[in-house]
Amino acid sequence: MSSNDHSILMIPGPTEYHPDVLATLALPSLSHTSPQFIAEFSELLENFKRVLGTKNGQPLIVSGSGTLGWDIIAANLCEKNDRALVINTGYFSDSYATCCETYGIKVCANQIGASVELSEIEKKLKEATADGVYKLICITQVDTSTAVLNDVKSISQLCKQLSPTSLISVDGVCSFGGERFAFDDWKIDAAMTCSQKALGAPPGLALLMFSQQSIDTFRQRTTPVPTYYANLNNWLPIMDAYANRKPSYFATPNVNLIRSLNTSLKLLLDIGIENIVRLHEENAQKFRNIVIKSFDLKFVPTTDKNMANTLSAIYYPKEMTDEQRTKFLGLVKESQVVIAGGLHKKIKTEYFRVGHMGYSVWGGQQQHVVQTLKAIEKALKESGHKINEIGKEDFLSFSCKTSKI
Amino acid sequence: MSSNDHSILMIPGPTEYHPDVLATLALPSLSHTSPQFIAEFSELLENFKRVLGTKNGQPLIVSGSGTLGWDIIAANLCEKNDRALVINTGYFSDSYATCCETYGIKVCANQIGASVELSEIEKKLKEATADGVYKLICITQVDTSTAVLNDVKSISQLCKQLSPTSLISVDGVCSFGGERFAFDDWKIDAAMTCSQKALGAPPGLALLMFSQQSIDTFRQRTTPVPTYYANLNNWLPIMDAYANRKPSYFATPNVNLIRSLNTSLKLLLDIGIENIVRLHEENAQKFRNIVIKSFDLKFVPTTDKNMANTLSAIYYPKEMTDEQRTKFLGLVKESQVVIAGGLHKKIKTEYFRVGHMGYSVWGGQQQHVVQTLKAIEKALKESGHKINEIGKEDFLSFSCKTSKI
Repeated sequence: MSSNDHSILMIPGPTEYHPDVLATLALPSLSHTSPQFIAEFSELLENFKRVLGTKNGQPLIVSGSGTLGWDIIAANLCEKNDRALVINTGYFSDSYATCCETYGIKVCANQIGASVELSEIEKKLKEATADGVYKLICITQVDTSTAVLNDVKSISQLCKQLSPTSLISVDGVCSFGGERFAFDDWKIDAAMTCSQKALGAPPGLALLMFSQQSIDTFRQRTTPVPTYYANLNNWLPIMDAYANRKPSYFATPNVNLIRSLNTSLKLLLDIGIENIVRLHEENAQKFRNIVIKSFDLKFVPTTDKNMANTLSAIYYPKEMTDEQRTKFLGLVKESQVVIAGGLHKKIKTEYFRVGHMGYSVWGGQQQHVVQTLKAIEKALKESGHKINEIGKEDFLSFSCKTSKI
Repeated sequence: MSSNDHSILMIPGPTEYHPDVLATLALPSLSHTSPQFIAEFSELLENFKRVLGTKNGQPLIVSGSGTLGWDIIAANLCEKNDRALVINTGYFSDSYATCCETYGIKVCANQIGASVELSEIEKKLKEATADGVYKLICITQVDTSTAVLNDVKSISQLCKQLSPTSLISVDGVCSFGGERFAFDDWKIDAAMTCSQKALGAPPGLALLMFSQQSIDTFRQRTTPVPTYYANLNNWLPIMDAYANRKPSYFATPNVNLIRSLNTSLKLLLDIGIENIVRLHEENAQKFRNIVIKSFDLKFVPTTDKNMANTLSAIYYPKEMTDEQRTKFLGLVKESQVVIAGGLHKKIKTEYFRVGHMGYSVWGGQQQHVVQTLKAIEKALKESGHKINEIGKEDFLSFSCKTSKI
């Protein structure tokens, strides 16, 4: 495939990849028990801890999609008939709840809303009686289906205050490596994500982080873990061995992808996570300004402070017909840009989604975002939507190339 | 990394990869819901069916290591208190049994032996009373820890005759794509493997195949499937959608690896599975002849007919000291060849393993095997073992390059 054929991928994951990430992926075979690979896996575990802001967290990186992360958290930290509070912000919260229920966990989920009010969570926590306290509280930092960004820091603070024994779990699939996050400082107990979003490598790895409190809870289980592949008893000794640069075996790791992800995290850490987050925030702000100013469109999240910086969920113009909506992504694709349709079942046909994260943001590839805006502009025009042409100065504002890349 | 630094990987998986397989892996991003990717996934499902010799099997390809395949079979085809017979040939049979037990399945395993006698299986099947019949019979075609090749065809025939309702499951991790196998003709109900052995792509995918009988058994469950990520209810609609070239979503597939594996299977099918198997058999026979004739060493499998063609497990010379054994793999590595140590706990320090499968066998890369034999020869010499130098004509016998590659 020549690079001319390539349409840039601006969906909320998988994303575009740095050339070094792809080059690492295609390195020749390396044994999963070789000292070189073990050293690289060990380094990746440390780098992942740095990206998530933890010194003493227990990292876990397993072959599988991000979805597997829910299994690992629910099946290991909870036992049958434990209670979980799922703070529902969209499609992925629904799935997380279903995963919990599979393991016999009693799920209490709030109604999905554009934003989650702290007062509502407070009410839920106070309703929980002493013996019915939540074992697990599940928060999705950015729900990929709605682009809602939750205030994880405040939610965690409130939960730790009102329900200190509850374990706080964060789904960071569409946020880690792009949004502000501090595992230790925010007192998070279990965090999960995948390789293919803002962490910048192809899909195929589930990444998790556990606090000491969650490991203690796991160690104090009175019933066996109800799954084999997702059982922490099988994985923790392996991660310990890798951390100590010793060989160990439970299942063959995805050697090429582990190395590729490590290349990506090294690029991120070289720029600095604080800078990476700032670049995502600035980029998203500029992107949203143009969507409002030039396209006069509205976002699914209702307030500025709960809009994700890694993707945007944008309502189609009201006057756009069903037929025009169906054709919209195809029109954008004609400009060699791939964006995504709506995902949340209640409003699926009413909006589209644009990913703006990872390499396209921090890799000096701001032309990806510019090309995307131009493609959307053209498609809106062709759909008969009146737009205010995007100004040259608006495009130029995206050209703040990071010096380190 | 320059190719000069590369040590060839002759362990029983991961293996060496065809350059096209690595090049496909490093192609730029492609959306997991794009028509192009869906068509490629659909093609891969068909190609996998062809490799396994099935017309009506239900394929399933999931992000995860091969180990996950056991979960998918055990958790979906069995219910709590069902009985399973694990025909034990080594380390991996032990793990399969543990996986079954995790899901509350009562496991009856035979004692590990160099070979599994049909008469022993017959006895086990006849002992099973009418209401205690085995729901699942687990066979490992080639146990990677011992290099024992089981006669799956005869075992399946016997089981189907004496216990027709039992589902026959085959672990083909170290055999599919290298050993003779016929899913339909041998009446197999569930088969599992991974991407990184004789199928010729990097690790990261669990591949499974189900017969109609096993899908029927699954549909007739009276209890819920006890896992989320490994639940067939979540995956079968996705595989149906891909087969019919329609988009669908449960978890993001490993796009790059799916495409890479498809490249590898297309290479295999272009040569023809019958030819691929024959090349593995011929190559293994020549390899073993030299091990016997020049090195005077013995194999872990005790008879010719139960020796795998994808790898060899070779006992160290008896006179070799523990210290020499510990250093042996390092000596081989000095010749830029990586082989593996023993794995089965009972005899771990007494033998070493050499993978000879996949690209190194069918890719016109017979120099991999020659280089490996030379490396072992040199290491044996340096360990003080008396050898009969390998003859030039023996090396030349490996030069039967396949015409199609």
